[in-house]
Amino acid sequence: MGTDSSVVQAARVSYGAGTKKTQEDRGLIRYLMRHEHTTPFEMCEVKFHIRLPIFVMRQLIRHRTAQVNEYSGRYSIMTDEFYIPEKFEKQSTTNMQGRDDSLDEIHGKLSWMMEDVHNNAYGMYKELLEVDVARETARAVLPVSNYTEAYWKCNIKNFLHMAWLRMDSHAQWEIQEFARAMYGLVKPLYPVICEAFEDYKQQGVRLSRMEAGLAKAMFGDWMDEWDEYVTDWFGQDDASPESIKEAEKLLCIKFG
Amino acid sequence: MGTDSSVVQAARVSYGAGTKKTQEDRGLIRYLMRHEHTTPFEMCEVKFHIRLPIFVMRQLIRHRTAQVNEYSGRYSIMTDEFYIPEKFEKQSTTNMQGRDDSLDEIHGKLSWMMEDVHNNAYGMYKELLEVDVARETARAVLPVSNYTEAYWKCNIKNFLHMAWLRMDSHAQWEIQEFARAMYGLVKPLYPVICEAFEDYKQQGVRLSRMEAGLAKAMFGDWMDEWDEYVTDWFGQDDASPESIKEAEKLLCIKFG
Amino acid sequence: MGTDSSVVQAARVSYGAGTKKTQEDRGLIRYLMRHEHTTPFEMCEVKFHIRLPIFVMRQLIRHRTAQVNEYSGRYSIMTDEFYIPEKFEKQSTTNMQGRDDSLDEIHGKLSWMMEDVHNNAYGMYKELLEVDVARETARAVLPVSNYTEAYWKCNIKNFLHMAWLRMDSHAQWEIQEFARAMYGLVKPLYPVICEAFEDYKQQGVRLSRMEAGLAKAMFGDWMDEWDEYVTDWFGQDDASPESIKEAEKLLCIKFG
Amino acid sequence: MGTDSSVVQAARVSYGAGTKKTQEDRGLIRYLMRHEHTTPFEMCEVKFHIRLPIFVMRQLIRHRTAQVNEYSGRYSIMTDEFYIPEKFEKQSTTNMQGRDDSLDEIHGKLSWMMEDVHNNAYGMYKELLEVDVARETARAVLPVSNYTEAYWKCNIKNFLHMAWLRMDSHAQWEIQEFARAMYGLVKPLYPVICEAFEDYKQQGVRLSRMEAGLAKAMFGDWMDEWDEYVTDWFGQDDASPESIKEAEKLLCIKFG
Repeated sequence: MGTDSSVVQAARVSYGAGTKKTQEDRGLIRYLMRHEHTTPFEMCEVKFHIRLPIFVMRQLIRHRTAQVNEYSGRYSIMTDEFYIPEKFEKQSTTNMQGRDDSLDEIHGKLSWMMEDVHNNAYGMYKELLEVDVARETARAVLPVSNYTEAYWKCNIKNFLHMAWLRMDSHAQWEIQEFARAMYGLVKPLYPVICEAFEDYKQQGVRLSRMEAGLAKAMFGDWMDEWDEYVTDWFGQDDASPESIKEAEKLLCIKFG
Repeated sequence: MGTDSSVVQAARVSYGAGTKKTQEDRGLIRYLMRHEHTTPFEMCEVKFHIRLPIFVMRQLIRHRTAQVNEYSGRYSIMTDEFYIPEKFEKQSTTNMQGRDDSLDEIHGKLSWMMEDVHNNAYGMYKELLEVDVARETARAVLPVSNYTEAYWKCNIKNFLHMAWLRMDSHAQWEIQEFARAMYGLVKPLYPVICEAFEDYKQQGVRLSRMEAGLAKAMFGDWMDEWDEYVTDWFGQDDASPESIKEAEKLLCIKFG
Repeated sequence: MGTDSSVVQAARVSYGAGTKKTQEDRGLIRYLMRHEHTTPFEMCEVKFHIRLPIFVMRQLIRHRTAQVNEYSGRYSIMTDEFYIPEKFEKQSTTNMQGRDDSLDEIHGKLSWMMEDVHNNAYGMYKELLEVDVARETARAVLPVSNYTEAYWKCNIKNFLHMAWLRMDSHAQWEIQEFARAMYGLVKPLYPVICEAFEDYKQQGVRLSRMEAGLAKAMFGDWMDEWDEYVTDWFGQDDASPESIKEAEKLLCIKFG
Repeated sequence: MGTDSSVVQAARVSYGAGTKKTQEDRGLIRYLMRHEHTTPFEMCEVKFHIRLPIFVMRQLIRHRTAQVNEYSGRYSIMTDEFYIPEKFEKQSTTNMQGRDDSLDEIHGKLSWMMEDVHNNAYGMYKELLEVDVARETARAVLPVSNYTEAYWKCNIKNFLHMAWLRMDSHAQWEIQEFARAMYGLVKPLYPVICEAFEDYKQQGVRLSRMEAGLAKAMFGDWMDEWDEYVTDWFGQDDASPESIKEAEKLLCIKFG
């Protein structure tokens, strides 16, 4: 629902109307993103029909501003599809929530171990259904690698927030991939919004108060020069993608 | 956080202040509940430390107005505790989402079947951890009967909405029991609110437009009498619990 | 965004797929509405460009699930349009929040009094702007009858909840009218959803626990007959509008 | 409701339990804030009884995650208190939403102009009430400078988000002051959370993708040195306030 222009239309009800050129629309969208004026981005909606393992769904469902209808294991029989990782990795020794070295050399064995659990669980699930145990009870034996299915709808502001958190390298690899796939479908529909998201949010850098102080102490003497470059090259919200690329090229030449 | 009085305090900022007697507080709470003036009920909060099977958590998490922090299978090792039903029931033939006749005669066998899946899955989970597969990957084999743990917080308005839906006989038996247990802990803390909830929401009856029309057609001649009883006995929001009980007794005597 | 069918599509992801006839779609929508299965109704969105007095906006904005972008008195000059009631009514003596007898005989005088305030305030607003007081400061003198403007978007579930509360006779007349106008625009777009809303929610009747007990005591002997009529005439969710009308006619004949 | 420790308690349900020292609690809170793990901050609530002009309330109410009960002009008579700015400033010529030079020299005249509107409006309001116009109608003439009153409750995560946006220099001065006053009351109750908020969110700096690229180009050669300082001085989440201050002193000495 909506396009880049829906955001502009909604923002202009606050900021003043009148016909503006496309280039100005882009500038306004970038201005809104840069200054965290997020409400106009709620005027667009994206809706997905998704299939994903339960353990990924359990992470996605935490984004409470989405609207969701999920396949019901009370009403319907769960499918016999289960997630097996393409690659296995060791528990990270430095990051309690992360992965580390590859376990590729035993990929076959590990896949087989997981499949064994899946087969055993699904076999028992079928047996329980055969003696007529209620579906809602029988499904309790199915692992969280089992695939589920849902309609998932969200406005673009909250979609980008989800995408920002879940495409991040700290998220579990599986939901990273899932979020990237969703984002890949959204980007062509909202090209200007997504460009602004990448420039000002996703690929930006945040400095803490202390880091900002350190930067000022170490590089304070260059601040005027810095400001000049920023203003000349990137400071205008309506800088075109071409002019940004051009500026980045100049920057490479200048600083090697 | 808060008591019955917090609701009264918040409502009085709209409805006018001044010291009122406890009996009037009760009347106000019942008035608010009866007329769906729900915002004052958002001024109280309840917080739980809960342990529950993943498949019940997946239902509870759908109540998006709650605040939740859940045990992380990425960071910590999942426990070896799994849910086995106390009683098994057949799939309902009339209700696609429900249960029917008991399967007590084969309870032992069914429990054993489920335990077998649990043991197999947890055994493999341990093996995967032993060869150092990342925890977040290994846990994919664990069934949704596995217990998880969370802090769950909600304001009383939204708590009662959850309780209303999940204590209902259409909900899965397991979350019914869970919601009833939560409600049982909340009720002594908010006795007047919960009494009003039961009287006006949970144990009330809703008639559709057509049913209301039918009632009017069939029983229209008794409407004056009806109104009289309602007014005399229950119509006053500040009717005390005793006077309601008394009225109900009179009602039994009168109508047998 | 969406149609009646979007709700059906989302619900079917839970309840089972397969091609169904339109009549069955209608039955499913009515079933969902009747049983308060509200999430599929979140799959449709309605968006309005609205103009309304600030005091009505202040009531509408309380519906927090809507997405809103409003005209900014910081950025733009407020219009010189103000709300004057078509009819004036006395403060109700029985209802602290309501109106009562007409004040039509002095309508002219009352309108003039309000206009006088509007003119005085707007005149001063202009004067403040002329001496270059910041717009955000100057607008403080404008009354809440001043018109504002906004984009307002909401999913159909929450739209109907707003409409239910605000079209109710206890709401202020002005927002009743506003909600009715909004509903009038939505109904042709979602005819089946709105029909179900009227039948099961808006024009239904709720009985408290005590009233339900009274009904059972007074009319218990007719319950079988009642159930029969309900089942025969209205009980089927897929009863067509024609068959409901027909049943209502029979009901009139039977009970006079 | 709650303290700094409530956040720690909730986070530990994910991150692993066990008794930890206070210093570690502080480290965990700072870690959560730095990495935008925001959900544990939803476990604390703050509640205010506020009095503020309607135009400030209209900005505050936009924060939809708060729970609010406001004084009702339908039920009660509005007070005769109105906001007059302590200082007047000119419309900014560069910032469409901002203020600029002082208008102190004509403060008396401007105050008088506003008071005149207030008196006129409130006088007419009283007259309308005297001829028994319904309160909800009569209040339409009152300006948005009129004071209203509310209970306002919010969890600490969303409170800090509101405070971040509204204490910002781009917000209207009046709500800046209001947000600062609220924050001033919250900070002593949640000292560690607020310290982390200031260090990592409020007083931090965000660089866009382009600015980050420029920084790397201009200062890339110093990155190792930078990293060293950050790690040595501020990188540890459990760095005590004293050690941070000490580091900042060293930093001043080193870089002048």
